[in-house]
Amino acid sequence: MKNELAVSSFFPFWEKMEQRHRDLIENRTNRLELSPGRIIGGDDKSCLGLLLVISGRLKAFILSNQGREVSLYRLFERDICLFTASCTMNNMNFEIQFEVEKKTSVYQIPPDVVEEIQSESVEMAQYVVNLMTSRFSEVMWTIEQILFKSLDARLAAALIEQQAIDESDELIITHDMLAKQMGSAREVVTRTLNYLKSEGLVEIGRGKIKILDYNALYDIANRD
Amino acid sequence: MKNELAVSSFFPFWEKMEQRHRDLIENRTNRLELSPGRIIGGDDKSCLGLLLVISGRLKAFILSNQGREVSLYRLFERDICLFTASCTMNNMNFEIQFEVEKKTSVYQIPPDVVEEIQSESVEMAQYVVNLMTSRFSEVMWTIEQILFKSLDARLAAALIEQQAIDESDELIITHDMLAKQMGSAREVVTRTLNYLKSEGLVEIGRGKIKILDYNALYDIANRD
Repeated sequence: MKNELAVSSFFPFWEKMEQRHRDLIENRTNRLELSPGRIIGGDDKSCLGLLLVISGRLKAFILSNQGREVSLYRLFERDICLFTASCTMNNMNFEIQFEVEKKTSVYQIPPDVVEEIQSESVEMAQYVVNLMTSRFSEVMWTIEQILFKSLDARLAAALIEQQAIDESDELIITHDMLAKQMGSAREVVTRTLNYLKSEGLVEIGRGKIKILDYNALYDIANRD
Repeated sequence: MKNELAVSSFFPFWEKMEQRHRDLIENRTNRLELSPGRIIGGDDKSCLGLLLVISGRLKAFILSNQGREVSLYRLFERDICLFTASCTMNNMNFEIQFEVEKKTSVYQIPPDVVEEIQSESVEMAQYVVNLMTSRFSEVMWTIEQILFKSLDARLAAALIEQQAIDESDELIITHDMLAKQMGSAREVVTRTLNYLKSEGLVEIGRGKIKILDYNALYDIANRD
């Protein structure tokens, strides 16, 4: 049997928690298997509560009324998905959706359990503050990229990120996926990719892009 | 003497707080008068703690390395400025700055006091979660405007917001200020303003804009 993350390992203050809170989490937590392509949030208005990612990958994104999508951040193993517990948050009037990008296993702590513990445990409430600050930071980073960075820097950053995710220089990705990643339009991505290709930094194939000069891309991505 | 907001009125759970926390706040809170034009954050790296706005107006914004500014939200009387206490937050790696837009009086609760109470009081920790959710919501709203709305809708929304702030149809505002407000460039604002003018919705003067048809602007701003 594979050695798997325990629910307790997601909470650094587990030992400090009251026994009844630990019991509540252990008795009420479900395990869910999420299939690739599934969208959480949006039309599916159910509030799942906290999702603790055991393995797999989720992408957080926002969607315009016209269906334009912008990726905000990704959640990997050991991350906690906070905004699936949005029903437990006062004052929250925005909607982040999640796409299951590959087969994902999560622990699901239902919203009423989250609410109860958060209203009684200062450690849990603090932990939520920290989680929210992390997500806020990730969103701000993305926004600053979109608002302030030149197109080639954003595209280079998106390619580098994809390289890290795929752990390969041969990226299986479409121009449309890159556009969502960058918060831009497909045509703009194609144009900018052609520029990077003309500089000898990438090779463009059907549904894939090969990175030829990682260091040069890295420099472009991190240019002011 | 003018009847002024008390520190306690900023905390809906004041009565539930422990006496020593109330004492700590009352003994350690300062009152600051902030002059228009002052920038808080940025080069001035001091961490002021929580600022409770008694009167006046602060504008939250981000700044690119090239000096491009994008307004995120505004804080008015009774609002709490959370991100001036960023040194108390783990995981926070973005920088929001504040501009004092008009003479502003605040209560300042120093960061060590914030940290101490937040680590002991579940009500305070919860309150910070709520504050952060509110700010997150405001930032997401702004971002969605910038990413998803057409230029004329964004400009109409900025004019309507300014009308509410000034409480007048005669807005004292430059194209540059509107550009920051919209997260766009001055030239783009000028072009879009000329379009609204050609439609008979606004009149453009030097350093001012007069709203001629509020309802039409409102419709444009709220169009999908």
